[in-house]
Amino acid sequence: MLFNKISLGGADMKFPSIPDKTPFTPLVVMELAEDTNEEAVTWLTSRIKDTQQSGGAELMIDRLTLDDNQDPKKENQNIFIVGASRERLLVGAEDVGLVKEFNDGSMRGFTYANRENFKGFQGDGDNFLSMAECQFIVKHELDTLRARGETHVPGYPKIRLYPGKSVVRRIQSKGILVQIFPLHDKEELKRLSSMWYQNVQLSFQPLDDIRHYFGESLALYFGFLEYFTLAMVPMALIGMPYYLFDWEDYDKYVLFAVFNLVWSTVFLETWKRFSASLAYSWGTLSRKKAFEEPRPGFHGVLGINPVTGRQEPVYSSTKRQLRIYLVSVPFVLLCLYLSLCVMMVYFSAEGLVLGLHDEEPTFWTSLLLYVPSIIYAVVIEIMNRIYRYAAEFLTDWENHRLESSYQNHLTLKVLVFNFLNCFASLFYIAFMMQDMQLLRQSLATLLITSQILNQFVEAFLPFWLQKRRNKRVHRRSGKVSPDQELPFDQQVMLEADMSTYLGTFDDYLELFLLFGYVSLFSCVYPLAALLAVLNNVTEVYSDALKMCRVFKRPFSEPGADIGVWQLAFESMSVIAVVTNCALIGMSPQMKSYFPDSETQLILVVATVEHVFLAFKFILAFVIPDVPRHIQIKLARVEFESMEALKKKVMYTVLLGNRPAPVPDLTKEKA
Amino acid sequence: MLFNKISLGGADMKFPSIPDKTPFTPLVVMELAEDTNEEAVTWLTSRIKDTQQSGGAELMIDRLTLDDNQDPKKENQNIFIVGASRERLLVGAEDVGLVKEFNDGSMRGFTYANRENFKGFQGDGDNFLSMAECQFIVKHELDTLRARGETHVPGYPKIRLYPGKSVVRRIQSKGILVQIFPLHDKEELKRLSSMWYQNVQLSFQPLDDIRHYFGESLALYFGFLEYFTLAMVPMALIGMPYYLFDWEDYDKYVLFAVFNLVWSTVFLETWKRFSASLAYSWGTLSRKKAFEEPRPGFHGVLGINPVTGRQEPVYSSTKRQLRIYLVSVPFVLLCLYLSLCVMMVYFSAEGLVLGLHDEEPTFWTSLLLYVPSIIYAVVIEIMNRIYRYAAEFLTDWENHRLESSYQNHLTLKVLVFNFLNCFASLFYIAFMMQDMQLLRQSLATLLITSQILNQFVEAFLPFWLQKRRNKRVHRRSGKVSPDQELPFDQQVMLEADMSTYLGTFDDYLELFLLFGYVSLFSCVYPLAALLAVLNNVTEVYSDALKMCRVFKRPFSEPGADIGVWQLAFESMSVIAVVTNCALIGMSPQMKSYFPDSETQLILVVATVEHVFLAFKFILAFVIPDVPRHIQIKLARVEFESMEALKKKVMYTVLLGNRPAPVPDLTKEKA
Repeated sequence: MLFNKISLGGADMKFPSIPDKTPFTPLVVMELAEDTNEEAVTWLTSRIKDTQQSGGAELMIDRLTLDDNQDPKKENQNIFIVGASRERLLVGAEDVGLVKEFNDGSMRGFTYANRENFKGFQGDGDNFLSMAECQFIVKHELDTLRARGETHVPGYPKIRLYPGKSVVRRIQSKGILVQIFPLHDKEELKRLSSMWYQNVQLSFQPLDDIRHYFGESLALYFGFLEYFTLAMVPMALIGMPYYLFDWEDYDKYVLFAVFNLVWSTVFLETWKRFSASLAYSWGTLSRKKAFEEPRPGFHGVLGINPVTGRQEPVYSSTKRQLRIYLVSVPFVLLCLYLSLCVMMVYFSAEGLVLGLHDEEPTFWTSLLLYVPSIIYAVVIEIMNRIYRYAAEFLTDWENHRLESSYQNHLTLKVLVFNFLNCFASLFYIAFMMQDMQLLRQSLATLLITSQILNQFVEAFLPFWLQKRRNKRVHRRSGKVSPDQELPFDQQVMLEADMSTYLGTFDDYLELFLLFGYVSLFSCVYPLAALLAVLNNVTEVYSDALKMCRVFKRPFSEPGADIGVWQLAFESMSVIAVVTNCALIGMSPQMKSYFPDSETQLILVVATVEHVFLAFKFILAFVIPDVPRHIQIKLARVEFESMEALKKKVMYTVLLGNRPAPVPDLTKEKA
Repeated sequence: MLFNKISLGGADMKFPSIPDKTPFTPLVVMELAEDTNEEAVTWLTSRIKDTQQSGGAELMIDRLTLDDNQDPKKENQNIFIVGASRERLLVGAEDVGLVKEFNDGSMRGFTYANRENFKGFQGDGDNFLSMAECQFIVKHELDTLRARGETHVPGYPKIRLYPGKSVVRRIQSKGILVQIFPLHDKEELKRLSSMWYQNVQLSFQPLDDIRHYFGESLALYFGFLEYFTLAMVPMALIGMPYYLFDWEDYDKYVLFAVFNLVWSTVFLETWKRFSASLAYSWGTLSRKKAFEEPRPGFHGVLGINPVTGRQEPVYSSTKRQLRIYLVSVPFVLLCLYLSLCVMMVYFSAEGLVLGLHDEEPTFWTSLLLYVPSIIYAVVIEIMNRIYRYAAEFLTDWENHRLESSYQNHLTLKVLVFNFLNCFASLFYIAFMMQDMQLLRQSLATLLITSQILNQFVEAFLPFWLQKRRNKRVHRRSGKVSPDQELPFDQQVMLEADMSTYLGTFDDYLELFLLFGYVSLFSCVYPLAALLAVLNNVTEVYSDALKMCRVFKRPFSEPGADIGVWQLAFESMSVIAVVTNCALIGMSPQMKSYFPDSETQLILVVATVEHVFLAFKFILAFVIPDVPRHIQIKLARVEFESMEALKKKVMYTVLLGNRPAPVPDLTKEKA
């Protein structure tokens, strides 16, 4: 959507504030702190506008001028709109390593020099890059705008700058840059919403369009959500008669559990293949990862990075290990212990209520029976959320250099706690109390409560709040209907006020716990799959709604798979093998098969469990992660690039000439 | 050792047969069939000598002329010596993707243009490449000598050639090329032997020198052998007192088993790190794999390869799958069944002998007690060897396109059978008969018999045969002492008659089974570790002996790790957790802890086992496979190459010029 001005409502209408300058398509908004020193503003904008040769980002930037009918004192005047020329974006596409479809149907790394051989490149390259890609490129170019000779941010002698380090990340971590976000595209969004969630319909999600608008990571999340839902449909269908006909026959439960275990392995393996296909067609499968810069929050004393050889803050890995093992690990263990204590309180409350009901069984006491479970479910949700903040604080304090390592440590902390917090009571009921009736009841309560809570807190409450805010803005700008187009500056201010989407972490976590509820105790509560399917169908709508209407547009994030979550789901399915085998072994029907010797029963169950586990690992090993036709395509591109290299080598050697020396432009830059 | 003529005994002495040509260092020997059509010989040698521009290999080749004092009719006259010029070898080093140490200490892909910046490159590049590397390069260049316009091998209208396919592989699979092997370097070999095995000494093996002479794969095997031996020393030391003091206390056995399980996990993980360090310093860790050509034995109808787009024989993957699942798998299952039958025969023989001894206990009958075990051990070895041939035949018949896929299928077949064949009787004794005394005795018999058999059949018998052959050749050529230098042609003929080393497969398999004997039942027979250490120490000597004195020199094979064997050893250590936990659970001492309920004992054992397995997986996950300092070095090279690419891109884009078109030399070639 490069320079697709119509989609933003016409260039003339949009730029009432820039009468004497070249108009450009606004892509990204940078909001500086209201009290930012004007010297710093001038320096920053000139650095962003500077040509690449002189070390700038060569982007276009302009201050957002607010309409006259508003009180200018009330609004932040330091909001900037960033855009870029068509050439700059195409050069940037090569910088960020975008992979696009070539004319021969293969996926290749985009190069500016070779641009005309890519599919869909017409004329000047209009519409070749999507708006999300353009925004991603602008973000990347801003992030890699590096300090040159400056020792500090002009106007802020205390905010030091180090040559070669990112300027934008520095001012962001110091609070001068309040936020940076890409703009929504109203027209496109309307089109996407109508395809995606506005009409209730029986069809797949428009994954390609979601990726086009929100980027690969988010599209992969929605793809996984859909795949997960579809995969649970057979489980739900097979599970329904158990509920309808009240089958208590454990032979049937065994069948159901076996089906579930095999199915969950197959589903996770085939998802890998499906996501590889998606990632290939989106060009992220063969994309090369760029060198990872330190995350904005990282701090340390000035030293030399052993990889780049550049000066940058370094932080001793030993110190970090000490912080992890001496503070974080004990803290997590303490939290786990607290969670177990809360669980024990729940069980005594449960006992109390049960005693009350037994003494005087009325309608009210029978209702009271559900109260401890519901309260416990709410408490679990609250504890999960509080712990989440603590985990973020701790992981931040561990001072990881890379965003990826930060995310891994955070994920691990949160996963372990959530797993214990959500499932400990169920394990206790299943294996200590061995009360299957209570297990079924608790499972249902936990599952339903957490689903309702989640969808309410995550989507509908924010949606309602955002709707109120929208109305206020519309009223203030004199428009009556909320569907009417707002003037550009009002639209920017509205989006700046929207909440920020913090990534797919919470969404995946929710699915992970749901998968646990469904698979861990599937043989005692087959209805869980049906509930999960229902939940996921509404989850698609509520997540779509929150992405399109509640949150600021997120920057697109290239991703080739669901990363650590694949491992988390696979671990859960391994644990599910163990729990289900144990549950079946404990059933009275099973015991009746071995009336003489319980020992033999346990040995049989243990053997079956080991066979299952071995089978899972062999299956995972045998099924290739990437489908054959994509492996061939990848191999072809690899082969061709190697052949091309060989030709070049031969050319160099045979003709006896070396490649011409490349002028070191970066030295002038740095 | 480029052009290190002294090391081969002087150029003048070596080439009595090439008086009027440029002398060259002989590197590789090609033996054509005795009755090869002279037309084909002329064509082949001219293709090998041709310049690269005209599609040749640009190597030097000459026919070996035999001394006059021999009867020329008795010897094959079609033996050729291949060598190459210094420049050709250096260009070839770039072709094969050799990675060498750069002047700044990092490891980089060698390029001819940049040759002077590599460490150890002096003057013309003498001694920069080792002789093994030169031979590897010559082999690669011969293998990639491709058919041009020829439709068939001259003189053989029936042997078709396809444009672009390897000529040498074709004539090899058709039997015109009998063998191709690299020459030994007598001086170097003498030096290596004296460091390696001739003086019994307490020191590590000279891995770098082994790699220098035999290549990376073999050096990694010897490295693994040494590492494995050292890793078993603590086990052997801890196991000794159990034997000496006849400890039958199961508390102590539990301790020993726990130590073994943890130790084997740690040892396998640290080996990965150690081998990564070795592979890094040898330049194979960061080496890029070239596109794999079909293996010589592969056949099929002519089609288009989807990756290269070239014409070549293709074979339907469905057909191969059918052959695997309908023939190979049933055959393997049948063999497994047969092996179990043999085992049952062994047990009845054992029972018979025991009955005899009980009836009439004399010295002779007590000796007779060992006979069935020893016969069974010998039969196992024989069955393993027969099965090996069958597996090779079947895997060949499955017609795999790639050598690697062939090797994987062969390895899997052989591993499964060997595992069952060697360990089935032990499992039967341990878990069906529950006779720990018999288990210990069988384990000892199997272990000792297979060790003696192996070392005898694999090293000492061939060594003795080779020694006899050497003496005969020496006698014939009039030299009295076998230490005296032979004339060059005699030496070539001698080496051509030596057996061919078939790769590290059998050696790894032997270690794998040894690891099984040591770890699977470690808690009942702690002495196994000591026996294994003793075996490995002699194994180092016998393997070194057979590599240096018995076999033809093998072509060096670049390798970064021990490949599928890492997985095999890890699987074995997982199985060992299960068996050891089960053995301990079955012990009477353990049972006495839970006098009331066997069920509880089993539950405890099962829980401990699961904790162990989880611990193993977490440990494997947490310990990084590549040491941090090597990760940093790899990241630095990666980063620099990316920076260089960026500079080039910027140069292209900013100055607006594309790289000059490269003349397509390969088109003229093909």
